[in-house]
Amino acid sequence: MADATGLEALDTPCLLLDEARLRENVERMRARLAGLGVAFRPHLKTAKSRDVARLAMAAPEGPAIVSTLREAEYFCEAGLRDVIYGVGIAPDKLARVAAVRARGADLAVILDSLEQAEAVAAHAARTGDPLPVLIEVDADGHRSGVAPDDAETLVAIGRRLVAGAASLRGVLLHAGHSYALSDPEALADAAEAERVAAVSAAGILRAAGLPCPVVSVGSTPTARFARDLTGITEVRAGVFMFGDLFQAGVGAVEPEDIALSVLATVIGHQRKKGWIITDAGWMALSRDRGTARQAVDQGYGAVCDLAGRPYPDLIVADANQEHGIVALRRGSGAELPDLPIGARLRILPNHACATGAQHDRYHVLDDAGRVAKIWPRINGW
Amino acid sequence: MADATGLEALDTPCLLLDEARLRENVERMRARLAGLGVAFRPHLKTAKSRDVARLAMAAPEGPAIVSTLREAEYFCEAGLRDVIYGVGIAPDKLARVAAVRARGADLAVILDSLEQAEAVAAHAARTGDPLPVLIEVDADGHRSGVAPDDAETLVAIGRRLVAGAASLRGVLLHAGHSYALSDPEALADAAEAERVAAVSAAGILRAAGLPCPVVSVGSTPTARFARDLTGITEVRAGVFMFGDLFQAGVGAVEPEDIALSVLATVIGHQRKKGWIITDAGWMALSRDRGTARQAVDQGYGAVCDLAGRPYPDLIVADANQEHGIVALRRGSGAELPDLPIGARLRILPNHACATGAQHDRYHVLDDAGRVAKIWPRINGW
Repeated sequence: MADATGLEALDTPCLLLDEARLRENVERMRARLAGLGVAFRPHLKTAKSRDVARLAMAAPEGPAIVSTLREAEYFCEAGLRDVIYGVGIAPDKLARVAAVRARGADLAVILDSLEQAEAVAAHAARTGDPLPVLIEVDADGHRSGVAPDDAETLVAIGRRLVAGAASLRGVLLHAGHSYALSDPEALADAAEAERVAAVSAAGILRAAGLPCPVVSVGSTPTARFARDLTGITEVRAGVFMFGDLFQAGVGAVEPEDIALSVLATVIGHQRKKGWIITDAGWMALSRDRGTARQAVDQGYGAVCDLAGRPYPDLIVADANQEHGIVALRRGSGAELPDLPIGARLRILPNHACATGAQHDRYHVLDDAGRVAKIWPRINGW
Repeated sequence: MADATGLEALDTPCLLLDEARLRENVERMRARLAGLGVAFRPHLKTAKSRDVARLAMAAPEGPAIVSTLREAEYFCEAGLRDVIYGVGIAPDKLARVAAVRARGADLAVILDSLEQAEAVAAHAARTGDPLPVLIEVDADGHRSGVAPDDAETLVAIGRRLVAGAASLRGVLLHAGHSYALSDPEALADAAEAERVAAVSAAGILRAAGLPCPVVSVGSTPTARFARDLTGITEVRAGVFMFGDLFQAGVGAVEPEDIALSVLATVIGHQRKKGWIITDAGWMALSRDRGTARQAVDQGYGAVCDLAGRPYPDLIVADANQEHGIVALRRGSGAELPDLPIGARLRILPNHACATGAQHDRYHVLDDAGRVAKIWPRINGW
């Protein structure tokens, strides 16, 4: 087969990244947040790639947020300076935090308990490093965080940090509940609830005479649908850069903006069952089945041709470790395409963070759909 | 806290492997299959580690089976010689197969269509390498394979291979349907059905004058419950080495034999909800929720203390990328243990293959539960 794109020459399964879509997704988010008058702090946990980070960040120094200390180390070695480790700090991780800070990065941590504040304050006093801290506030009962109206805990944490010579930088919230929504009005309401909780918590700290320069919120859906961000200083979002079927189901990205796909090869058929078997199983696609809870269940992914055009109703209906079972959506009237042994497909992922993590590099496609370069990515902790 | 085991000093989340349990699991399977008079071909797709392979294989040369060409390359570089690539071959993968064979390994491939046989025969004729092939036979409608009674296709594939100077080595089946069972009698019946299908397909080839020296079956559950393996030459199994909660739910392993766990640190609480938050989210545990379809749903994993003793009814009830939400099983009368910030836990995985793939090494525990060594593992294709 003639192949001017290089896609036929790649070993499969592997990860493809459409650079033009990535750039457009980033530009759209930047413009939107600039219009709302807030700074943008990209989350690097989806891409885990210095090349993607350079496109997503306003400057090589940041700002950005990461989900692991491995990411903090990797990005700060490449020049990132303004960064938050966005998972509640455990005391035994403070040595690694200090090592990154000692190399010049302004790495901040988050926490939501007085126990953690004690440990951080003791660390700051011992090392003389005024470690910056954001208090995690619970936007919607989804995960971690101090309740936004729990003035006693917020103020106790703030006072303990300041007394211990750590530096209180502000509050941070994540509207994780937005992932369960799909109606634009409900998403705008979730964004407003996140804003109100953030502003309320910041107000409590300030009323107690504590500093709160940063009021940080974010999730891809609320960043997309927020109507007003008065009182917010920065918004965090990450998965929007690549997009995925889950975020498309939420309505936070358009399906045609999804920049990430898995390249697969047809390795067999069970014709009586209408199955096309590929070499992209759950190891290549991830075990994520997030769309199973949405209005449209995309199986383990939606199947496209080599140019990235979806086949009507064709999904990865089931998967084993190294086998994907491609079939028409149940009840579909579409025709199963004729895809012989060796044919190549592109599969849009349920969840870009999970699918990306199964791979160690991106094969980056240029405007003509050609494999133009390789961008490595990291995994692990 | 005093810590003679080294577990308190590890960065979390990370993967722990109990070497004694691993050795016992391997010995038990070896003894069982020796008693049934068949050879054992360990599947290396779960561990993806040369150190584990050395323990699992009868000899450094094998036999073994792998799920990716990357595994074939990695293990053959270390001396493996007798190996099957156990996923239907795509023609464009033959160059990598040939490169491994050229370095001295007897790497065999599998296929289930005349199209693939044509490509393999053409490759064998072109290169002069009598590439060994097993015909994949469908044991139970689970995935790939020629129907065991489809004499026309079996013989056509066999003849095409032999005519093209490839070498027909036999038939291979995998009773994937056994994973959906849990009753020992039903599992023994699944093993017998797998055996009958294998012997039947081998008989069809032999009756047509074709060679079929190898009759290969296997899955951890059928290897555990087979009563009789007359006519079978080898059994393949892999996940039994580590075991996991899913296989325990099937009844194929005992919960106390599970050798793999994820070490996690407590990073927070939502006390009103009965939640303990850890730093082992789905990135460390995998997105696998296989036990959701079993009688006992283990969430994202079962929670144990540092010595590996399960806390009653304590599971990872939900997970975000880097957050595990630990809670009592719904309806439990057990008491939530007091686990302060910084406490460490061990989490038994739903699926060892999926959880292992999120990590790049095993921290290997000796008989005293001490971290004795590090075994690297590979991922990717």
